[in-house]
Amino acid sequence: MAAKQSRGSWVASANQADTIFPIENLPFGAYRLTAGGDGRVRLGVAIGDQILDLRRLHGISATLNVPAALANVLDALAGETLNAFMGLPASARAAFREFLSSLLGPDSSAREQLAGCLVPQADVQMQLPCMVRDYTDFYASIHHATAVGKMMRPDNPLLPNYKWVPIGYHGRASTVVVSGTPVRRPSGQVRAADAETPSVGPSKRLDYELEMGIFIAEGNEMGEPIPMADADRHFFGLCLLNDWSARDMQGWEYQPLGPFLAKSFATSISPWIVTREALEPFRRPWVRAAEDPQPLAYLDSPALREGGTYDIQLELLLQTKAMRERGEAPVLLSRSNFKDAAYWSASQLITHHASNGCALNPGDLLGTGTMSGPTPGEAGSMLELSVGGKQPITLPSGEKRSFLEDGDTVVIRAVCETAGAVRIGFGECVGTVVAAKG
Amino acid sequence: MAAKQSRGSWVASANQADTIFPIENLPFGAYRLTAGGDGRVRLGVAIGDQILDLRRLHGISATLNVPAALANVLDALAGETLNAFMGLPASARAAFREFLSSLLGPDSSAREQLAGCLVPQADVQMQLPCMVRDYTDFYASIHHATAVGKMMRPDNPLLPNYKWVPIGYHGRASTVVVSGTPVRRPSGQVRAADAETPSVGPSKRLDYELEMGIFIAEGNEMGEPIPMADADRHFFGLCLLNDWSARDMQGWEYQPLGPFLAKSFATSISPWIVTREALEPFRRPWVRAAEDPQPLAYLDSPALREGGTYDIQLELLLQTKAMRERGEAPVLLSRSNFKDAAYWSASQLITHHASNGCALNPGDLLGTGTMSGPTPGEAGSMLELSVGGKQPITLPSGEKRSFLEDGDTVVIRAVCETAGAVRIGFGECVGTVVAAKG
Repeated sequence: MAAKQSRGSWVASANQADTIFPIENLPFGAYRLTAGGDGRVRLGVAIGDQILDLRRLHGISATLNVPAALANVLDALAGETLNAFMGLPASARAAFREFLSSLLGPDSSAREQLAGCLVPQADVQMQLPCMVRDYTDFYASIHHATAVGKMMRPDNPLLPNYKWVPIGYHGRASTVVVSGTPVRRPSGQVRAADAETPSVGPSKRLDYELEMGIFIAEGNEMGEPIPMADADRHFFGLCLLNDWSARDMQGWEYQPLGPFLAKSFATSISPWIVTREALEPFRRPWVRAAEDPQPLAYLDSPALREGGTYDIQLELLLQTKAMRERGEAPVLLSRSNFKDAAYWSASQLITHHASNGCALNPGDLLGTGTMSGPTPGEAGSMLELSVGGKQPITLPSGEKRSFLEDGDTVVIRAVCETAGAVRIGFGECVGTVVAAKG
Repeated sequence: MAAKQSRGSWVASANQADTIFPIENLPFGAYRLTAGGDGRVRLGVAIGDQILDLRRLHGISATLNVPAALANVLDALAGETLNAFMGLPASARAAFREFLSSLLGPDSSAREQLAGCLVPQADVQMQLPCMVRDYTDFYASIHHATAVGKMMRPDNPLLPNYKWVPIGYHGRASTVVVSGTPVRRPSGQVRAADAETPSVGPSKRLDYELEMGIFIAEGNEMGEPIPMADADRHFFGLCLLNDWSARDMQGWEYQPLGPFLAKSFATSISPWIVTREALEPFRRPWVRAAEDPQPLAYLDSPALREGGTYDIQLELLLQTKAMRERGEAPVLLSRSNFKDAAYWSASQLITHHASNGCALNPGDLLGTGTMSGPTPGEAGSMLELSVGGKQPITLPSGEKRSFLEDGDTVVIRAVCETAGAVRIGFGECVGTVVAAKG
């Protein structure tokens, strides 16, 4: 069975075969016009190569047949961040998606009014889609955990808790930045293997981590866990995430309380949030291998088993400064798939996070951890690709890399593309390394 | 030399010998009237047993001789959180402190107008003083790190990085709560020492940690470190902090990425922030023992050596449910002093945190870590007092405790009291454990 044909839109670019934003996607984001306009951040939905501006939609809502139940939804979308919309009940968000889908569909009677709400994506600079109050980073790929563990404990790579507890840690929310933001190489304490005392300087082992980001929709009250059966209504959608990591700083600082400055200098995310509803056709059964422990009851559910994971194809590409100067496109370093990489599902991460009564809020971000798959070509970090820096990789340009150099641009991309469904995409999460502060 | 006499205030209760809020203190907080009023959260400054309401002060500012430079400062204090005020330049905050001090001083000509701005502390419920966007918890007492390390590694309690790197981790901002908020015992995964597999249930090793909280004033731009010479202007003030900890959950989950659900269920803070300016008389020279490594250059400064730490007397008290029912006051479990407990100063924690370019924002909270002093009676957690639960302590009531029981109330108090300075206090950070969700 081939990929399904989009039902189409009167926005012509949404019907092109290569679009990642057909009417079946409708991801949410925030933007500012590159030139002109009032300089404000505005919310929008991507459709083809355009953005439907939601503030303008709110402004013309009197001319549209807006169902009464959606009036407050439109109000929530007239601001500068998605948090208010994310916090609405799942039913309201789903109803709005249907409304949007009819407005933008081929039979829409609102084409004329809506034409004035469209903004070309080429004319904007994307912004953070919401205020990320709390950011948590998980470690959900057993392949990544095993590969990294092997470098430290060759005989015993996985710690005893890994197959039982979704391992995670709190990250730094203030340095979550949108794709395109330059990433300054951090300086900090490191201790060389042969040194008695630490020294301070720019990180020499700067790395990327290919992750996905899970956005929280409705929150839970402090003290009130989220059972697996409810996890989906707290799950707004997914983006791409690069958890930049300074491996030398990490090695020196991380015991016993975990990574800190090695990670907190920057975390990049892709600008468009693909909603859970848009991902529905790409749900796949979640399977735990027979030789592994089955999840404890609070992390299990029939819905998880039936369709708790997603078929999302991930790619990581690198473009060096020399390649950019010669006009060469980024080269592929690895490919993996969320369904093969994630040992824990999005619903399990949400449920585990709230299981102690921790309050999750609309707009909170959960990184999945590095999405490495089972084979070497599916490694989601340079630490893995270069085996801890010991086996530098050679790029087609002839340049070698053990870790990132100044001027390197890291690109993460993802699409969902399977038989019987309309292809949708996430776009890109891009960041270029700039030299440490002199 | 005895304690100094306060210069006094026309607010009579501020002149009583036992007040912790004389005119030399003037801590900031947020409150809501217990009954009546418009239900809004308002900002205020404690003076004696009263609160000077800053929104009302803003309202009558036309009748006061407000220096022109302070107009925007008053605007920043008319809202519901302190963040805008915290983000003002240090000079503006200091000027406002002088202005307040003259308004409330014995020679104030504004007594009549200001009388209407006073609210009895007995009539309010204190709130979180600011929106804590990011919360970080450090591990700054070497005595605590050594005592805890000894339980796991008797021969080698301190890890090699401890004396070089201020160890810290990101905490959960969404569950920072104000003193008085009940704390629900968390449930979660634990693995008993003799068990093959983990189980799920209410924590059996619930603990407190006596800490101080450092609030950030002005922020730094992402990518721009804060040198030690500038740290003070980013340091707004201190509060008391209880880092509630589920030791059994922590032991099972914390490797390799650090504490997560064992801490994220609740962190309590005292409601009044004592400013850096108010703490000035209690500055003490910061000394690193000769046998220990001196700090690396980026964590050192002449100001640190001259007066980088503070003489703050900390107390931790416990009241069981049975004691409360019999009308018995909380009993003292430990006493310590910030200057003896903190191996790293507030300025070093701030500078280290931003050294990789991590952006700190106004209202961010940095926990110091458990402020245990060098002797057993100065242990700031029950884990230390009961030696990992192996030696239960006996309370005067005859009750025994290895860890906290439901109904236990934990109280942290602190005062600054030294010869030649007016005594000031922090008030209390209180929390009562409620049973796990059934």
